[in-house]
Amino acid sequence: MKSLTEHEIIRILTNQFTGQPGTPLGFDDDVSAIPFSPKTWIIVKTDMLIGSTDIPPGMTAQEAARKAVVATVSDFAAKGVKPQALMVSLGLPAPAKKKRVQDIAQGLGQATREYHCKIIGGDTNQANDLVLDISGVGFADPKTLVRREGARPGDIVAVTGPFGRSSAGLRILISKRKNDLAKYPTLVKAVRWPRARLTQGIILAKSHGTSSSIDSSDGLAWSLHQIAEASSVGINLHTIPIATEVERYAKDHRLSALELALYGGEEYELVVTVKPRSFNKLKRRVPSLRKIGIVEKKRFGVAAQIGGKQITVEARGWQHFT
Amino acid sequence: MKSLTEHEIIRILTNQFTGQPGTPLGFDDDVSAIPFSPKTWIIVKTDMLIGSTDIPPGMTAQEAARKAVVATVSDFAAKGVKPQALMVSLGLPAPAKKKRVQDIAQGLGQATREYHCKIIGGDTNQANDLVLDISGVGFADPKTLVRREGARPGDIVAVTGPFGRSSAGLRILISKRKNDLAKYPTLVKAVRWPRARLTQGIILAKSHGTSSSIDSSDGLAWSLHQIAEASSVGINLHTIPIATEVERYAKDHRLSALELALYGGEEYELVVTVKPRSFNKLKRRVPSLRKIGIVEKKRFGVAAQIGGKQITVEARGWQHFT
Repeated sequence: MKSLTEHEIIRILTNQFTGQPGTPLGFDDDVSAIPFSPKTWIIVKTDMLIGSTDIPPGMTAQEAARKAVVATVSDFAAKGVKPQALMVSLGLPAPAKKKRVQDIAQGLGQATREYHCKIIGGDTNQANDLVLDISGVGFADPKTLVRREGARPGDIVAVTGPFGRSSAGLRILISKRKNDLAKYPTLVKAVRWPRARLTQGIILAKSHGTSSSIDSSDGLAWSLHQIAEASSVGINLHTIPIATEVERYAKDHRLSALELALYGGEEYELVVTVKPRSFNKLKRRVPSLRKIGIVEKKRFGVAAQIGGKQITVEARGWQHFT
Repeated sequence: MKSLTEHEIIRILTNQFTGQPGTPLGFDDDVSAIPFSPKTWIIVKTDMLIGSTDIPPGMTAQEAARKAVVATVSDFAAKGVKPQALMVSLGLPAPAKKKRVQDIAQGLGQATREYHCKIIGGDTNQANDLVLDISGVGFADPKTLVRREGARPGDIVAVTGPFGRSSAGLRILISKRKNDLAKYPTLVKAVRWPRARLTQGIILAKSHGTSSSIDSSDGLAWSLHQIAEASSVGINLHTIPIATEVERYAKDHRLSALELALYGGEEYELVVTVKPRSFNKLKRRVPSLRKIGIVEKKRFGVAAQIGGKQITVEARGWQHFT
């Protein structure tokens, strides 16, 4: 029997749950919402990190635990919602060593201090791999919540930072080349110590100038396609935001920097569309915000016009089960 | 290096998070709470099920998925809170077979229909074992929330049903004896198709007659000790509530029915203390409610006087990493 892809698995699961009334955000957005009152929705998100598939070589247990929190916080960041509280479900192989548990506790504590949220509960289990499932809870005014489907023709497509660092860094960690590990510290750090754009996400949401938003945890290309599809628009890029070190690394190894930037994952930048009149004001408040393209009326997916060349940006990104 | 027990792991994790302000329920109770307003707390709980350690032989993927939801719902039941929405974090070994994913989806859907709650989101991951982490969210008035520490001397100790079925059923599934599988269908069903006492928990909480409550997922003895410790009281039992089939099964196999009832786990009955004047009224509304003992002033842990014999009920139960 053919193995399912992650998207096929999600389709089977969500088909079982359709027809449920009153789920305002649904399964496709970065977070889920429970209406509490006309002015308040409870925002929730869960994200699971699995040792064998999600932790590259050279990453410590402390870093992995911190990253598990960052992944959940990043989804809140994309919607402009502060996560108030977190829960941790931990699976650990037996025997459970004291040092390892302390490292995990420290990584979790570190992340909660960075993003000013609390861990208020959890569950502990014996597993044959490290499993860290982080659930977050926050509150949002439905009026300021930035959805995926709000992009309108003429809106500016922007990102909160350059891309490709995580995919290049992941290659370096997997290859274990000492030379690269020393030469590209920012690429390695991007994987081992990622940051969620929570402050930026909250500013962008509160501005009312942001028409759609998504985090780039599945890759830039995938995120752009998600916005284009959810909003029934096309996206045309005039530049691909590649980090300088990624250009150098790609040249060193005869790789395509464009590929690294478009189709990597776990980058945790925000991909947003902004009303043209709001862009300059937002750029002053979020200096890393960078215009990369424009939303068009026609549904053609995502394309890029770069250096006189027409590039098709494919709807692929990082996914499990491939 | 010595391996940690589950309680030692929890201690290390929670030590990292103490000193966080404004966590009204803390790590020891069945659920966690986020204060939203004086009249409303957001109640959350996460519970992880791991294939290799939590699914006995003979249990289907559908049953496992349903049980994962039941475990989370049971913690809400103990506090008298209806879980409004659930999130599912799913880890699956590759290749992911369609039939298996459909079975899991059906088990999840089945449980949500039983307990009238919705699945509103989740996460899908590749893992080397089945991992099902279910997070629940509900709302509660802090005044009606039944904590673990409310037991007072003179209160009646009661349970919502008999004990021992799950631990006996688990032994039958592990032994795979066809004879026992046929002879004790209710014991096998107790493991494969457990039920959370949500309706009963909500009635008990709304009555204002319940002074403390806990679910028995770690075993009857452990639950009683948790209430006694949290409430700074002693508990004296005049009976151990053993299911009739468990008595028969224990006799058949020369086991102690008392042991099976006291120290098993994953039973999902509620263990409560009730104000004496409220007991009869509550018994009419929750017919399965059964008096098993009395709360005493002196802190002596949990003891039982049965048939003229004094029995010490140990503070042990089902835990991982043993």
